[in-house]
Amino acid sequence: MSQLTPDAGPPLRRGRGRRPADQVRAEILAAAGKLLLAEGMAGFTIEKVAAQAGASRMTIYKWWPSKGALALDGYFTVVGPTLAFHDTGDVVADLTSQLVAFVHLMNDTPAGRVISQLIAQAQTDPDLAAAYRQRYSAPRRALAVEAINRAVARGQLRADIDPESVVDQLWGACYHRLLIPDQPLTEEFARTLVDNLMRGLR
Amino acid sequence: MSQLTPDAGPPLRRGRGRRPADQVRAEILAAAGKLLLAEGMAGFTIEKVAAQAGASRMTIYKWWPSKGALALDGYFTVVGPTLAFHDTGDVVADLTSQLVAFVHLMNDTPAGRVISQLIAQAQTDPDLAAAYRQRYSAPRRALAVEAINRAVARGQLRADIDPESVVDQLWGACYHRLLIPDQPLTEEFARTLVDNLMRGLR
Repeated sequence: MSQLTPDAGPPLRRGRGRRPADQVRAEILAAAGKLLLAEGMAGFTIEKVAAQAGASRMTIYKWWPSKGALALDGYFTVVGPTLAFHDTGDVVADLTSQLVAFVHLMNDTPAGRVISQLIAQAQTDPDLAAAYRQRYSAPRRALAVEAINRAVARGQLRADIDPESVVDQLWGACYHRLLIPDQPLTEEFARTLVDNLMRGLR
Repeated sequence: MSQLTPDAGPPLRRGRGRRPADQVRAEILAAAGKLLLAEGMAGFTIEKVAAQAGASRMTIYKWWPSKGALALDGYFTVVGPTLAFHDTGDVVADLTSQLVAFVHLMNDTPAGRVISQLIAQAQTDPDLAAAYRQRYSAPRRALAVEAINRAVARGQLRADIDPESVVDQLWGACYHRLLIPDQPLTEEFARTLVDNLMRGLR
């Protein structure tokens, strides 16, 4: 997971030629994601992201309305490759491998602590709550629903299921153990979640 | 749900005869639960609970090591009747009615806001996190596991299921929507959660 624990990388780059806007945006997002994972929201500032990405604060404010929005977009970007939905055509294998990758991300990297503190802060900070939903959880949910719908289209899952509810019973069940750790969040747990839903409990 | 939105009730009772310890304890717990639901942790103090229950602070400290412990024990007590697991012998009906009652408690009373703020605060307050788990979530989880195990014993659910994982896929899925409200926490959602697990998705 080198994208989650990178070394500092190239600092200020004002000396070189002007970068295309897409590249600047990508470098700002990468810097924001790295900074969030390294310091959490407590140490996250637009100034630090700007310095690390070699961009001006004005450029950042042009694209992101708030610190929370930038942090969540950066987090979405940096965890994206780890949380990709691969499509081998086998829905059980694909959901399981994605869910196992999510469990490892939460357990083995700073992402678990960072995301639980973001969810916590969102309970009393409406702007952060909106940024979290719009820039992280809703787009991640959409990717999961897409993966479930592909399996429905292939006839691997019933056509009358509600994909949104499945998201809550797979990833939501993991967030439950992350936030209220009465029971451990393990790879075996992830596999059991998929198995319960696929086989049914009866 | 009169136990959740009571009026002030009898105040200080120092004038009357000495109450048995069990009764004092029950009145302290009821007062603590009421105060938590009325004011959240922000307005919760041992002084206010003592005044409302007509007990001394010393009595409260004798039984509860911290404000958080008292608040969580009070919450467990006050929501207990609403969240009872009735046993009619029909596991689908029983799980559904309990889960629907939980959804209404979260949506229609102050409990939803209070519990989400307790979970939030627990992310950065280890003492509150321990009190939450020991005095609320672990005992509630045990009641749910008991209900699931009764259905296993009756042959209504497979003997090889992991009841703990079912708790995360029913109540945990609801907490996910409570804390990250991308999708609404509704009675229909509760019914779908049970249905997904009972029928399976295939």
